[in-house]
Amino acid sequence: MIIEIEFTNQPIPSQSHHANAGAGAVLEFHGIVREFEQGAKISALVYELYEPMAEAVIRRILETLGETHPCLSVHVIHRHGTVPVGEASIHVRVESQHRGEGLRLMEEFMNQLKADVPIWKTGSLPC
Amino acid sequence: MIIEIEFTNQPIPSQSHHANAGAGAVLEFHGIVREFEQGAKISALVYELYEPMAEAVIRRILETLGETHPCLSVHVIHRHGTVPVGEASIHVRVESQHRGEGLRLMEEFMNQLKADVPIWKTGSLPC
Repeated sequence: MIIEIEFTNQPIPSQSHHANAGAGAVLEFHGIVREFEQGAKISALVYELYEPMAEAVIRRILETLGETHPCLSVHVIHRHGTVPVGEASIHVRVESQHRGEGLRLMEEFMNQLKADVPIWKTGSLPC
Repeated sequence: MIIEIEFTNQPIPSQSHHANAGAGAVLEFHGIVREFEQGAKISALVYELYEPMAEAVIRRILETLGETHPCLSVHVIHRHGTVPVGEASIHVRVESQHRGEGLRLMEEFMNQLKADVPIWKTGSLPC
């Protein structure tokens, strides 16, 4: 399974990859900053991450999930710094032969990312 | 829940929507024609559909799923006619407040689409 992991402090560009040969399913998840955070209206969230460890943990999670839910490729882009409301803090793209393993891997990856990866919301900007 | 359903006999364009206000999760599924169909190498699949009924059934499925997994919007584009290998026959985009309901709705929608919607693979083109 091909694993690509990127971090950026810029807006995540919209992608128009071609699917790898053999892919029957391409699943993309965009996690978007919402305008309310813990009841308060905000204009942006601030993310910080410890990049070497974040990358290593993401890779280990994906390698383990790939044993149970083998996919063709996973591409993760996580943004850090200030992310305005309505923009994506994360984009995950999974290519798989069939949709079942792609959906499983996506769901379990996002759950484990939130639980285990050293990426934190360290603040928010008010409106 | 906003529901949009389209059919086209042209390539499905890559989209770069902005997310609706309140969306925290955008999930996109692209179903891609693979190069092997029942063991034979092909260059394209041919899809036929009965459009009025396909649209009505898709809408009914989504309205029912939306009661259990309320999302903000669902946009379905299904291609018909000849779809070359590597191109998408379907694109589904779901916007939701959180990713959980979006993943549930996507998975159940695709299962029911395959089972119940009058869209058929009526042929394939050899290489």
